[in-house]
Amino acid sequence: MADKSEKTKARLPRGFADRGAEDIRAVEKMMATIRSVYELYGFEPADQPLIEYTDALGKFLPDQDRPNEGVFSFQDDDDQWLSLRYDLTAPTARFVAENFERLPKPYRSYRSGWVFRNEKPGPGRFRQFMQFDADTIGTPGVAADAEMAMMMADVMEALGIKRGDYVIRVNNRKVLDGVLEAIGLGGDENAGRRLTVLRAIDKLDKVGTDGVRALLGKGRLDESGDFTKGAGLSEQSIDRMMEVFGAPGGFWDYNMGTEGVISDDRRTTEDNGKTSVLSNRFAINELRLAFSEQPLALDGINELTAINEMVRAAGYGSNRIRIDPSVVRGLEYYTGPVFEAELLAEIPNEDGQIVRFGSVGGGGRYDGLVSRFRGEPVPATGFSIGVSRLMTALKNLGKLDVSEVIAPVVVLVMDKDTESLGRYQKMVSELRAAGIRSEMYLGGAGMKAQLKYADRRGCPIAVIQGGDERAKGELQIKDLIEGARMSAEITDNAEWRAARPAQVTVAESELVAEVKKILAAQAADRAKGGA
Amino acid sequence: MADKSEKTKARLPRGFADRGAEDIRAVEKMMATIRSVYELYGFEPADQPLIEYTDALGKFLPDQDRPNEGVFSFQDDDDQWLSLRYDLTAPTARFVAENFERLPKPYRSYRSGWVFRNEKPGPGRFRQFMQFDADTIGTPGVAADAEMAMMMADVMEALGIKRGDYVIRVNNRKVLDGVLEAIGLGGDENAGRRLTVLRAIDKLDKVGTDGVRALLGKGRLDESGDFTKGAGLSEQSIDRMMEVFGAPGGFWDYNMGTEGVISDDRRTTEDNGKTSVLSNRFAINELRLAFSEQPLALDGINELTAINEMVRAAGYGSNRIRIDPSVVRGLEYYTGPVFEAELLAEIPNEDGQIVRFGSVGGGGRYDGLVSRFRGEPVPATGFSIGVSRLMTALKNLGKLDVSEVIAPVVVLVMDKDTESLGRYQKMVSELRAAGIRSEMYLGGAGMKAQLKYADRRGCPIAVIQGGDERAKGELQIKDLIEGARMSAEITDNAEWRAARPAQVTVAESELVAEVKKILAAQAADRAKGGA
Repeated sequence: MADKSEKTKARLPRGFADRGAEDIRAVEKMMATIRSVYELYGFEPADQPLIEYTDALGKFLPDQDRPNEGVFSFQDDDDQWLSLRYDLTAPTARFVAENFERLPKPYRSYRSGWVFRNEKPGPGRFRQFMQFDADTIGTPGVAADAEMAMMMADVMEALGIKRGDYVIRVNNRKVLDGVLEAIGLGGDENAGRRLTVLRAIDKLDKVGTDGVRALLGKGRLDESGDFTKGAGLSEQSIDRMMEVFGAPGGFWDYNMGTEGVISDDRRTTEDNGKTSVLSNRFAINELRLAFSEQPLALDGINELTAINEMVRAAGYGSNRIRIDPSVVRGLEYYTGPVFEAELLAEIPNEDGQIVRFGSVGGGGRYDGLVSRFRGEPVPATGFSIGVSRLMTALKNLGKLDVSEVIAPVVVLVMDKDTESLGRYQKMVSELRAAGIRSEMYLGGAGMKAQLKYADRRGCPIAVIQGGDERAKGELQIKDLIEGARMSAEITDNAEWRAARPAQVTVAESELVAEVKKILAAQAADRAKGGA
Repeated sequence: MADKSEKTKARLPRGFADRGAEDIRAVEKMMATIRSVYELYGFEPADQPLIEYTDALGKFLPDQDRPNEGVFSFQDDDDQWLSLRYDLTAPTARFVAENFERLPKPYRSYRSGWVFRNEKPGPGRFRQFMQFDADTIGTPGVAADAEMAMMMADVMEALGIKRGDYVIRVNNRKVLDGVLEAIGLGGDENAGRRLTVLRAIDKLDKVGTDGVRALLGKGRLDESGDFTKGAGLSEQSIDRMMEVFGAPGGFWDYNMGTEGVISDDRRTTEDNGKTSVLSNRFAINELRLAFSEQPLALDGINELTAINEMVRAAGYGSNRIRIDPSVVRGLEYYTGPVFEAELLAEIPNEDGQIVRFGSVGGGGRYDGLVSRFRGEPVPATGFSIGVSRLMTALKNLGKLDVSEVIAPVVVLVMDKDTESLGRYQKMVSELRAAGIRSEMYLGGAGMKAQLKYADRRGCPIAVIQGGDERAKGELQIKDLIEGARMSAEITDNAEWRAARPAQVTVAESELVAEVKKILAAQAADRAKGGA
């Protein structure tokens, strides 16, 4: 096995990532907060497997022109096709359809887990990522949609994101579909082109106005040389689309000039600083004027009106939940209200540029997804948080401090005979019995390497007992944090050094008490803003 | 989409499972406890993706004669083969090999997650299941193996499993390999047959003595008609194998008759009740006699001796960690000490029969697994807990009570106009702001259906406000738990009914205070052993 010529190359497949301790702890902490909000709202945890029959997942991915329709698939031994789930919604729909009779209706559940996309990976774009969803299934009432928007707003604040630093944008697919009807893209025969148009608009953030215009027209060549076929709209239709949806430059993206217009919504400039807060009712009225001839759009506008009234009755202003016709959501299965949770905070990106962070989650109504199994209407709505993306944002905002986790106390190994190892092991057992995170050094190296190990791990304390100490029934306890600080300071700070020694010799029986004392002193230093 | 003739069938693929709220909460609680022990021992969380290059995972599965070698595999768009991981150890080895220079050595980490086996599913045998592992990589010293055994013993007790109801069994692959050498199965050319023999012995629990003898000999036909080819040993070799490993009937499975033999290990009959506790030192001495001519076995026996001394020095008796030569572990990659965590408690199985629960986890030393990437020795050892299996055991032992999670208070919907919905929504918002789990009923049904919904969810309280109450600024609050109890009792219990009414009418402003009062009364009833 140790023959170098035959060794296997250790490498991660493209688009997948290993995660380290800090990220894992941060995600755990964040997810516990999200879970507590979902629970408060009365949702119950649920979980589906990562593998489903391919036909049960359906073909709803934005990039379905890719090989395998964007999903990882394989054949079972009975030749049926299986796929790794690409989101949590499709498996939820399968589960609800399969267990419909025994579930309470509406069925309110939440779930988190890994999903997979067989796509071209890129910076920040992974083929395995985690989502955290909530869904209400079995009710057509937009009260359920309004609740989703409110819950997401509450999640943002529970995570420590200040009011004004986020917004939940709400639109309605029926409005979008109404506009598409208006430019002659109604009817089943245009379903494909409608989707191409929606996906083009959804890419505004990524490709800009010109990019969207290209995608609405003849198509677009990206930097990597890939050509995406366009929707083939006329210049006139493109103008109409861009007028409504194509912020910046559209009529949704301007500063409010007169207080009177937003009389139904107090502007919260004190929270926000920005002046681009748009009144929900104003937005809805503008929509009504623009699409007064489109019955489908008007239906959608009425739903938005009801959502707006409900969230306002519950005390959520348009600085938290905002009606915004530029919200699209690229997935094909949405049928009514759609949401997008956006972080407005400006955060350094991977290249150090300060940018508005953008979307951290979204969702909407998917009335057809359970129905396709049941053969009867089963309306549903839900929301999905992109866990890794939200975590990145929270880390940048300093909202995910996991520094309270202390590295273990390490008992160094000075003598390697079994009897000594047993003795060191006993020290560690005593520390652990007292609830102190600790370990015996398990490598084979000498004192210097052991201290280097302790340094790499960030250990707060090292316990040392060589033959001399053992003969006297003593041990040495090194305060590694104080020691590091002392060696960083100039050596003539004798006074300060005397105040807290970096190394003490104590009787064996004092091990636990002394370690506790030093850990407490280190904690007090941290609380004072030290190390 | 609603055409019945075209609908897709909602069905879970074979060998996969949906999980409900109770199981999820139980697993969360259990895993938090396991995590706290791993942390106490100084291990750090880590995480690898679920997909790896197939060659990086290697071929170490017991059932590698199955299609796809027992793993789910698919080709990437560059034609390289990818697989879903079948355990957490192989990806950990890949990660450590790839990041070797920057990791502290030894590298101590823990991880949990789903793993996949492309096997024939059966009752309690899933194709997706969860493991929770800890690994120490980069040290050959058996102190690391001893620590694994101790940590697993501590995990069992942290989970509430009584001493005597579990045992960590320890063996050494070198002993097994020594025996195989003795019957003429040494050398690289016999690697395949050795593995067949080990896997046969490992199946003792499942197939019994006769089944193992068949698997060691010509082969075995199981109930489903599948034939498993045997190792082809002679009758004499089979006898030798069964003498050593083939409990019951082998020399490891008898009651201790004389206290003198186990002088180095106090028998803990007070904890255990059973009299089959075998002294570790006695077991080792027996092993030494049996294999005095086998250098490889003796090397393994010396390691077991060292492990025994270390765990005893740290205060773990043979009622917690036991040397037991019948432990095999089926995976091919083990090279030294192997462990098995066994629950001795007798628990009802799926058919209601009372059976010893058996293995809930295992592990061992896998010195070759990182080395195959590095081309240099990187010794390693680890332990893996089967999460679902352990959870099943704990539930049966009554150690995973999650009844402290209370279903939401439900605000019923009497009037469905937007204004009323907004008002109900506001009540819910107030309850949530007070930290009370609650929801507005979001379906479209009438009063009776709403109370049925509340019943299905197990809601503790329903809040009701119709037009009459609203006019008076009041609302009704129904104590659903008290109500259910009252309807179960005979109606003439007037005295008791007066003590706590099942329904009260209060002013709107009293909503939160009254709900809190009723929840507190219900909690007090539960504490008294009521409902």
